[in-house]
Order: sequence, then C-alpha cells, then structure tokens
Amino acid sequence: MASARAQPTTCMALAEPLALDSGQVLHGVTVAYETYGTLAADRGNAILVPHALTGDQHLASPHPITGKPGWWHRMVGPGKPIDTSRFFVICANVVGGCMGSTGPASAAPDGAPFAMRFPVITIRDMVRSQVALLDRLGIARLHAVVGGSMGGMQALSLAANFPGRAARVLGIATSARHSAQNIAFHEVGRQAIMADPAWQGGEYYGSGRTPDKGLSVARMAAHITYLSEAGLTDKFGRRLQDRPDGSKGAKSFGFDADFQVESYLRHQGISFTDRFDANSYLYITRAMDYFDLAEEHGGRLANAFAGTDARFCVISFDTDWLYPTSESRSIVHALNAAAAPVSFVELSAPFGHDSFLLDVPALDRVVAGFLGQ
Amino acid sequence: MASARAQPTTCMALAEPLALDSGQVLHGVTVAYETYGTLAADRGNAILVPHALTGDQHLASPHPITGKPGWWHRMVGPGKPIDTSRFFVICANVVGGCMGSTGPASAAPDGAPFAMRFPVITIRDMVRSQVALLDRLGIARLHAVVGGSMGGMQALSLAANFPGRAARVLGIATSARHSAQNIAFHEVGRQAIMADPAWQGGEYYGSGRTPDKGLSVARMAAHITYLSEAGLTDKFGRRLQDRPDGSKGAKSFGFDADFQVESYLRHQGISFTDRFDANSYLYITRAMDYFDLAEEHGGRLANAFAGTDARFCVISFDTDWLYPTSESRSIVHALNAAAAPVSFVELSAPFGHDSFLLDVPALDRVVAGFLGQ
Repeated sequence: MASARAQPTTCMALAEPLALDSGQVLHGVTVAYETYGTLAADRGNAILVPHALTGDQHLASPHPITGKPGWWHRMVGPGKPIDTSRFFVICANVVGGCMGSTGPASAAPDGAPFAMRFPVITIRDMVRSQVALLDRLGIARLHAVVGGSMGGMQALSLAANFPGRAARVLGIATSARHSAQNIAFHEVGRQAIMADPAWQGGEYYGSGRTPDKGLSVARMAAHITYLSEAGLTDKFGRRLQDRPDGSKGAKSFGFDADFQVESYLRHQGISFTDRFDANSYLYITRAMDYFDLAEEHGGRLANAFAGTDARFCVISFDTDWLYPTSESRSIVHALNAAAAPVSFVELSAPFGHDSFLLDVPALDRVVAGFLGQ
Repeated sequence: MASARAQPTTCMALAEPLALDSGQVLHGVTVAYETYGTLAADRGNAILVPHALTGDQHLASPHPITGKPGWWHRMVGPGKPIDTSRFFVICANVVGGCMGSTGPASAAPDGAPFAMRFPVITIRDMVRSQVALLDRLGIARLHAVVGGSMGGMQALSLAANFPGRAARVLGIATSARHSAQNIAFHEVGRQAIMADPAWQGGEYYGSGRTPDKGLSVARMAAHITYLSEAGLTDKFGRRLQDRPDGSKGAKSFGFDADFQVESYLRHQGISFTDRFDANSYLYITRAMDYFDLAEEHGGRLANAFAGTDARFCVISFDTDWLYPTSESRSIVHALNAAAAPVSFVELSAPFGHDSFLLDVPALDRVVAGFLGQ
C-alpha cells in the first residue's frame, strides 16, 4: 500500500494573538503543520487530526529526528482508513509543543527562550490555535476531526467550543476530563523532570545540559500506563535478557536490566529524550490535567454539546486502563442527553491505551466507516 | 481497645553466616525485631508477621522516626484479630532493610558501609534470616506466618522452603511471582533513584547528601499502584486545593500542586525519605522482582507446596490491580494441585492494594477466624 506523501512541515504565523484560558495573551504564535492529500475546490474534504501528548505533526511522514514512520502512518494514507486520496488531512503540532509550534523553547519577546515564563496552556488553547490555522487555510467546516487520547480531547473541545466547525467528531481512547489517577501519574513525571538538577528551573536551553534523566523516568512511568498488564505479560513476561558476557537469560544478581521489560522501558525512556523537550512535557501534561469539559460548561457535560450539529463516534478499548471504557461511556451519555447523533463501540485489543496506534483491524473499519458516511 | 505493648526492638546477631541465593555468604548478620505478647511454655503460640516493601519491625508500636502507630496496629494487639493476649507475635526487619537489620547502610567487613557492595538478596534470603531468628528464639514450629504483599511472598516462601516450620500460612494481597508490570513499576523507581546525582553510585553515606528527590519520585510512582482508581477518585477526584494566597480552589495556571491529589502524592514522596534508605529501596524491590516461587521449584508452582503440612488461607481484594485476584487464584490452584488445605476469599474493599493495611472489617474476621482454627 502506498504511503502518504506529506507536504513538508509548514510554519504558519497566526494572524491574531492567541487569547488563552489563563487570561494571558500569546503574541506571534507559530503553528507547525503538515498536510496530506489535496484540498477539494469546495474545501469540504478536510480532516483535522490533533495529536496526543508526545505526538507531533509527523502524522504519516518519517520523523525528522528518529527517522521512524509517522505516528499514525498505518491509519493515514492513500486507501487507508483516513484516505488521503480522498481527504485533505491536516496535523499541527500543539501550542506548547517542541516540533515547530510556539512552545517553552521558543523565543519570548525579549529574545531569550520562554522556558517557564511560557504561559500555562489548556486543551482549548490548543484547539484555538488549530481553528486559527483552519481560518488561515480557508477551511470553514471540517469533514471531520479525528483524535486519539489527547487528540480526542482536542476533538471534543473543538466540537464543544467551535460548534459548526466539524461535521464529524471521532474520539478514540479518550476522556472528557482527567481523573485523579491520570493527574497522579502526570505529577510523578513532572516531579521526575523538576528533580533533575539539569532542569535548572527550566532554564536549561543553551546551557549544554538537558534534564534527560528526569524526562526519561517520566517517560518510563507514563509508558507503563499506555500498555495493558496482559500485554506486558505477553510481550515480556518474566523473560530475562542475554547478558553482555554471553550468558543466556541468567539473573545478574545486580542492578543491570536483567528482565527484558526493564531493558525495553529504559530504551523507551532514553530514546524519548532525543526528540522531546522536557519543558514541553511539563506544559502539555498540565494542559491534560486541567482538561474537564464539563467544568468549562457549567459542570454538566451535556451542556458542552448543546450547540453541536456534528455526528459523533466514540471508540474505547477493553484493555485501556488509562482512559477506560467508562470514560467513553460518560461522553456518550452526555451526547445522548444533548440529542447529538453518536455511535459508540468498545473494541477488544490487547495493547491497552496504545491500541489506538497499533494494529487493530476493527479500529480501521470503524474509522473508515464513520468518515465515509 | 488496648494497643499492643511491644518489647523494644532487639538486634539479634545470627549464629551462622547467611548463605544467599546469589551464591554469596553474608557474615555477621543482625536481625532487628520486635515481639508482642508472651511466648507460651510449649512455644506453640508464635506468629511470624513478615513486613511489606516499606514496612519494618514496628508492627504495632509507634515508629521511632515518624511517631505514627505501627503499620498494622489495627490488626495486632490484645483482642485484635492477631490477638497478642493469646499469641506471641514476631516481626523482623528484612535483611537488606534500613531499620536495624543488616542492609546496604551497614558496615561491611572493611568498616565502610556496604552501599552497592551489599549482595543482591531474594525473598528466600529474607526468609532464611527469619528462620535463623526463630532458631535463636527456640521456636520450632509457628502457629502461623501471616503476611500481606511482600510479607505474603515471604509467608509462601517459608511454607515452600521450610515445610513444617509453620502450621498455618496466611497470604494477603500477594503473588507467587512478580509480573512484568510489577517489575516495570519497580524499575521506574530504581531509575528515579539512580538518576539522582546525590545517589553517587550508592556511596552517599556520610557525604551529607542523600538521593531524596529520586527516592521521593520512586515512592510517588509506587504509591499510585497501591491505590485504586476509584479510591483516588473518591478521595480526591479533581478537587483543587486552597491557594497559599487564600484563594479557594482556583487553578494557579502554574506548576504548583493545584490538585489535592498532587499535594498528597508530593507529601507521600517527601515524608518517605525521612524514614527509608534509598539503597534499601533498590535492594528490596530487586528481591521482589526476582521472586518466582514456581521457578525455584522446577517451573511448577504446585511443586513448591509438595512437602507442606500447613493449612493455607489466601485473601485478595477486588480493587487491587497491583496483585490482582488472578494472582491469588494461581496460588490456590497450585495448593489444590498439591492437595494442601486452603481457604480462598476475595474481599470487596475500595482501597486497592493498600486494603490489607486499612479498615476492612471482613479482613479482620477472616484473619481472626483462620488463626483461631
């Protein structure tokens, strides 16, 4: 199957300052984005795909640092469920990110990096910047907005706060608010970063030191939550690795990575630091923790969807314990209460939260079917 | 209800060197322990209570550092489920620990602290040291061994490796082997400690610096796994704290602990460093990760119990996702296959893994009933 041909990343300066939920105003915002496929003459075939916590605009194009295929390359391309021979697909790095959109590593008005002077942003602020991008692209109404995890939060927020801008809203493995446990895991990650002396209060840019150890621990802790217990058992169980000295699968009676799962996690942590900025991790996790769509709308989730004219599809995975099916069901109940048309499916997949990124043929069918309706 | 009157901690030098699973031999081992109640003339009323990962010998006596009641004060005392007016209860700090038993902070033969020269120990090594203590106390056969979490692992290991030494074996919220997910969470904690520059390769004793930040992050990550998602939601939900400036429950749009769950976790992390040695945390988590009772016995868990003449009781909690009921069921199936008498109950309690330490009246009844049989 052909892969998607992306336009190279474009950095678009927004026309207007971005008024944030915090009350602050961010001037001179840049949004880095990629597009796939061709915008129809009537501009009616655009699909926006907001990314998850550690994603970026490299939706289906090789990542410039890791060289790996884009994070949703299996979903987006010609003939794929999000079919780029039919749709014009847009993916933008979130505000607060580190792949070209304005974030903590960007220059503040005084020329120095914002670092922790960057304003705390929210999911709605991310959506505001993407709607501003749609304005620049002349797209009044999306065929669909499609997102998994934090991408799903943005999809829901767009539906709630910009009714009329999307005809279809697809949220996968997501939630309308962050639970206490979700916040707790993020707080561990933030504390791990801030405990690293190389963090230097966030002022590490240009210092020659970056808080890689802290960021790596944060990523390790988070990564466990993306997988299911059964998935980890299937993939690694208690299998030992072969030792550097050639001995096969023996315990070292030391603190090397004896178990394959230890080695895997360490690799996940370390490789993450090559492509992600620790301060962006702080800001984006904070945005997720602040997310509570009901709270934004008078404490009642159904209110969030009162003005919508979109059709919705909500998908959860049975092994996802980070955003379990009960969270999706709350969204569906609110949509029902708001009389919005909604399809809801819980898919069975062994990969936990990460199922939305992995090989789940039933997911492909549901996504393709919903977008084709 | 009267509380238990403990004998002050006694430090007992073991008569023999301790031969470890690693092949190393530890000389001059000290075991710090407390006892409650009176040993009967026939020495038949002794109950051994091995502690969990961060426990110690202060089972039902105030902790000398924190001043808090002993970790199982609600279970152990006159008239309590483990009734010290009837039983002689022994609780010993594990080898590798930091409350008086020989561990990484202890002096090696050269007079300097072992630090990372301390040998990696196993759950079976912990049990060996406790059996050696029982020998010194002249206790040939325990009325019971009772443990939760890692204490339960020790109880099972004692039953398997020292058949005949306990008439009753009670394992609560425990497992016969550490899963990939269990190992993964421990590895995050170890990496957090070792990433702290104050850890200094473990050689921090006497340096004036201790890896408190790393240990605190390790404790925070672990603490989440001790609680249930629903328990965290009930206890904290998304409630905000009042701000130091007096404003009530408002988001700071910063990185202070806005949510009560953040503040709680930070407190858990920081206060833990007052009473626990980071190197002990490394060694004890390693012992837990290495634990696989089936592997020790030819790969078949039933073999571990082939020689036992004890009665068993296995208790799990429905909200414990760290050592879920399925792990207890595996133990019970193995005991069935070994034709050992076993009672098994899954209790409903909202507190997750920590249920074994908290107010669960049904647990009290099962423990008291089993010990009284």
